[in-house]
Amino acid sequence: MERKPLAPPGFSRTFYKRQLPSPPAIEFASARGKQVFGEALADGTVNNFFKLIEQFRTQDEPAYCGLASLAMTLNTLNIDPRRTWKGPWRWFHEEMLDCCHPLPKVREEGITLTQAACLARCNGARVELYPYGAVSLEEFRGMVAEVCSSAEEHIIVSYSRQEFRQTGDGHFSPIGGYSAREDLALILDTARFKYPPHWVPLPMLYK
Amino acid sequence: MERKPLAPPGFSRTFYKRQLPSPPAIEFASARGKQVFGEALADGTVNNFFKLIEQFRTQDEPAYCGLASLAMTLNTLNIDPRRTWKGPWRWFHEEMLDCCHPLPKVREEGITLTQAACLARCNGARVELYPYGAVSLEEFRGMVAEVCSSAEEHIIVSYSRQEFRQTGDGHFSPIGGYSAREDLALILDTARFKYPPHWVPLPMLYK
Repeated sequence: MERKPLAPPGFSRTFYKRQLPSPPAIEFASARGKQVFGEALADGTVNNFFKLIEQFRTQDEPAYCGLASLAMTLNTLNIDPRRTWKGPWRWFHEEMLDCCHPLPKVREEGITLTQAACLARCNGARVELYPYGAVSLEEFRGMVAEVCSSAEEHIIVSYSRQEFRQTGDGHFSPIGGYSAREDLALILDTARFKYPPHWVPLPMLYK
Repeated sequence: MERKPLAPPGFSRTFYKRQLPSPPAIEFASARGKQVFGEALADGTVNNFFKLIEQFRTQDEPAYCGLASLAMTLNTLNIDPRRTWKGPWRWFHEEMLDCCHPLPKVREEGITLTQAACLARCNGARVELYPYGAVSLEEFRGMVAEVCSSAEEHIIVSYSRQEFRQTGDGHFSPIGGYSAREDLALILDTARFKYPPHWVPLPMLYK
């Protein structure tokens, strides 16, 4: 008979992932999620997925969702940081994104949408910033569909997890694809220790 | 007129990625790579891709390809490390894989196939180890096809980059999918600062 090791002290207050509330979300790697992906692939609305998923990463700190989304997207865009990360390699990593707001503050509080735009710009990206309400649902859908089909630009969304019945609140993540048939957007959630990537209804994401 | 910032000293000895020698490799996000993926998806031989790509990560140190492949695979298998990573979250990270070989040594020398198997086992995975020559090409192809279709097990390969005309030599990476039509395996290269994921001819990988 095998003996299970005793849990270390405080273990009960730690977490191994969270259950993804579904609906409204559809887990990417579920049978249904694969079906949505397959159809969107055939429709040409997940062209941006390939370059972006190559750079999918786990945020390095609980409040680094904004920095992780940025590092992912800057690497996806093939922007050379012109400074080294490790060894002889030039590469974006969250800790290198320190030009707009002090990192110790980011570690405590995260970043705002405006700070995210500042960080993307000062690291060489061209940025369009749309605060909530700046575009209509129709316009938002059009932008998501176009970006996911063209694969030349990328969208990072800042949204509330509460809309999807997820624990936590304000969160950043890149959009990894769009399903026109079902009006779903693929959230590449950088808190991979918590939730897997998932499809969400685009109107709920817009909210 | 914009002035380009002067490169810092030593800049010319640093690298922003390497050109992927193609052939023999086919870049995952290229038009051809997407076509191979789409066909393999329809054939049901990239079922393992979905869970695995959710955990795709960049190795944290130049010699951590083995540890990164393991951390990726342990997280993919939903194995609870029973110890925390950051904050309250239990999650595998390279630096937590320290039960078989001292990390400072791994940082210098990397790990062997036997050490990789030891690390996977002492972290809770069931492991089958096949040193070079233990299986025939036909058997290897059968294992890759089965694992990539079933998505219940995963394969990490240890191979020489030289076979594919890539810089460097011994390297570990998980296999992210199989194309039966073209007999190609998808290498999820953890050195993402160097090469993107790519399809390679399975007989060359076997070598």
